Amino acid sequence: MTDLNAMGLAARKASYQLAGLSSNAKNGALLCLADLLEQQSETILAANSKDIEQGKSNGLTDALLDRLLLTEERLAAIAADVRMVAHLADPVGEEFDAKVLENGLRLRKRRVPVGVLGVIYEARPNVTIDVAALSLKTGNACILRGGKETTHSNKALTAIIQQALEQHGIDGNAIQSINDPDRALVAQLLKLDRYVDMIIPRGGKGLHQLCIEQSTIPVITGGIGICHIFVDESAQQAAAVDIIENAKVQRPSVCNALDTLLVHQAIADQLLPKVADRLAASGVELRLDEASSAILANHSIAQAPAGGDDFDQEWLSLVLSVRVVDDLDVAVDHIREHSTQHSDAILTESLASANAFVGAVNSAAVYVNASTRFTDGSQFGLGAEVAVSTQKLHARGPMGLTELTTYKWIGEGNYLSRS
Amino acid sequence: MTDLNAMGLAARKASYQLAGLSSNAKNGALLCLADLLEQQSETILAANSKDIEQGKSNGLTDALLDRLLLTEERLAAIAADVRMVAHLADPVGEEFDAKVLENGLRLRKRRVPVGVLGVIYEARPNVTIDVAALSLKTGNACILRGGKETTHSNKALTAIIQQALEQHGIDGNAIQSINDPDRALVAQLLKLDRYVDMIIPRGGKGLHQLCIEQSTIPVITGGIGICHIFVDESAQQAAAVDIIENAKVQRPSVCNALDTLLVHQAIADQLLPKVADRLAASGVELRLDEASSAILANHSIAQAPAGGDDFDQEWLSLVLSVRVVDDLDVAVDHIREHSTQHSDAILTESLASANAFVGAVNSAAVYVNASTRFTDGSQFGLGAEVAVSTQKLHARGPMGLTELTTYKWIGEGNYLSRS
Repeated sequence: MTDLNAMGLAARKASYQLAGLSSNAKNGALLCLADLLEQQSETILAANSKDIEQGKSNGLTDALLDRLLLTEERLAAIAADVRMVAHLADPVGEEFDAKVLENGLRLRKRRVPVGVLGVIYEARPNVTIDVAALSLKTGNACILRGGKETTHSNKALTAIIQQALEQHGIDGNAIQSINDPDRALVAQLLKLDRYVDMIIPRGGKGLHQLCIEQSTIPVITGGIGICHIFVDESAQQAAAVDIIENAKVQRPSVCNALDTLLVHQAIADQLLPKVADRLAASGVELRLDEASSAILANHSIAQAPAGGDDFDQEWLSLVLSVRVVDDLDVAVDHIREHSTQHSDAILTESLASANAFVGAVNSAAVYVNASTRFTDGSQFGLGAEVAVSTQKLHARGPMGLTELTTYKWIGEGNYLSRS
Repeated sequence: MTDLNAMGLAARKASYQLAGLSSNAKNGALLCLADLLEQQSETILAANSKDIEQGKSNGLTDALLDRLLLTEERLAAIAADVRMVAHLADPVGEEFDAKVLENGLRLRKRRVPVGVLGVIYEARPNVTIDVAALSLKTGNACILRGGKETTHSNKALTAIIQQALEQHGIDGNAIQSINDPDRALVAQLLKLDRYVDMIIPRGGKGLHQLCIEQSTIPVITGGIGICHIFVDESAQQAAAVDIIENAKVQRPSVCNALDTLLVHQAIADQLLPKVADRLAASGVELRLDEASSAILANHSIAQAPAGGDDFDQEWLSLVLSVRVVDDLDVAVDHIREHSTQHSDAILTESLASANAFVGAVNSAAVYVNASTRFTDGSQFGLGAEVAVSTQKLHARGPMGLTELTTYKWIGEGNYLSRS
């Protein structure tokens, strides 16, 4: 039986060592891990084959099986990512906000690892390595809980991670994986506040809701994006169509893809047919409010009236909700009501409209004349992406290495008492 | 019956207005609030008298009654604090981390209010005004839940806060107070994640635990300090005694006061009698481990053997646990095991010991040759103190105005699509 308490205690102990490692020591282990992934590819692929076989006999969809599958090529790409993480700057140890108080106390903040992370994710063995690399780089211990469909792969990968750690004198318990499929362990992990400092769910709405409701540990929620573009009356229409296409069609299955198009009533007659022409070519299906439905009634694009909670859908597919709005204020009200505060954009030539929108829409990322698709750690130049946070504490939007750290205050005096 | 959902919705709506206010507008309302507190002191004191009467008939202790009591003088001090908050710098709207990506996307972060705060506290009517002022200053709406013993006072104070807001054209629902004593409302507030963005408990361990266990909203826990001083063998002993006295005696009832003294075995024979001499004069009672007990057996200071969970006590009184440790490593292990990660200090002349301690002890504030009593928003020059966080996300240690804000990313392009 899995003893989660023992795993937590071991992770906490390992975290003390990790927090004191130099960047060189951590990078050495990372580069070793990358090498081992390639050297031991046969072992990994054999374990992965078992998961694939079981998945097939359990009737997993082709899409799920593809997520689960590892190949020589994919392993090489994963190893390359680990080498990339090794070459990123290490945020740990940085000192900032230094000042000397009038009484002589020398005060500064030092960036330190969060401690122990709990990461819960689905049947993607690449996430196991990805999270392990980011944790190690930032000096955090980590307890991983992957999908039960990847048990064999995760066991093999975790063994290799621990081998790399131990070859570099690092406690192997720094990165542990819960390989027991018992679902009760997830609930237990969420209550392990004695040892775990931060929970990162990487999965769908259900997983996030479970974490919010059950966790006694701070949770970084995010990754769910109901994203909007509002086309103001002054927008350049041809350019607007390009952005709408990019945001909806380029990669519809991701969280920063467009879900709802809001169009100013003054230009709806002109713009909507152009949008429909373009999107029809990519097989997009529209869910139209009454006004947009009237405009596009005779258009050949696949369409249906928007009903029920169509404006509260993260489509993750080639579906787009459309609403004609009276003005910017109505667009803002709609976004406040329906957005998940992930990524929302205005297209406009008006400085006043741009400023009003940016001020009023309080999403993690707010765009002017740019696609919502930019919300992404690598696009934002963070080097890596741990998660996209849509909650407001600690970090918002794409989280990189720095967001896996916290700080402590250091105060130095000359035997100084408070007066 | 109190409709918490309606209060949450009203707070959310008010938060939209608050987020857009200029510093001048917020400061105007704050200065007005300070004036009204003085002008309407009779009304406030009359309401407070009712609470005091009820408190007496309910058998509240003198200490609790004193916390509850408002006087002309205390009101004037509260008003002065509000004026001080009005004169602090406003963190909202600051932009930082600006950069231009290679594709031309202009990216920056803007500091924005968190949104709606839920603050749960005890029978201290001054906290009602304090929290209202800090919330308003940072553009956050707030739902206050004070102790049931202060219902009349809080009603009167909230009415005056809302009067100040409305006189300055601000939605009075920006600051609301739950005056219904029904305890179920606390549990409801903790689940109001649809409208409330951050929970700040200001109270004892029980309240913090309740919030951690029940809240679906991120909680800032803190304010519980089991604080340590480790006296290394190289420390200047006379100076060490001064700091130990300061940390234990100056204000024993607060969270940054000293709870446990750890003494290096090489100097325990010399140091402990001096510490006992000094602390005996202030009426301190010691809880001694075996080694320190042997050293102080014949000393006149009040003492008892440390037993059970004496090293896990936040004493909040003139009691001090004492342990003799073999070396710095044992001291660090003790602190990791027993500290609440609030404030811990080393006294030493050794640079190596100082660095090792600061590196290994991961508390919100770590001191070298300084008293633990410095952990405080005003001591740290933050201008105000919202709470002292001992959790690791968002903020650690004393939280000032900036820690009541979050940020959003703003991306501007010239009709830019992701390639």
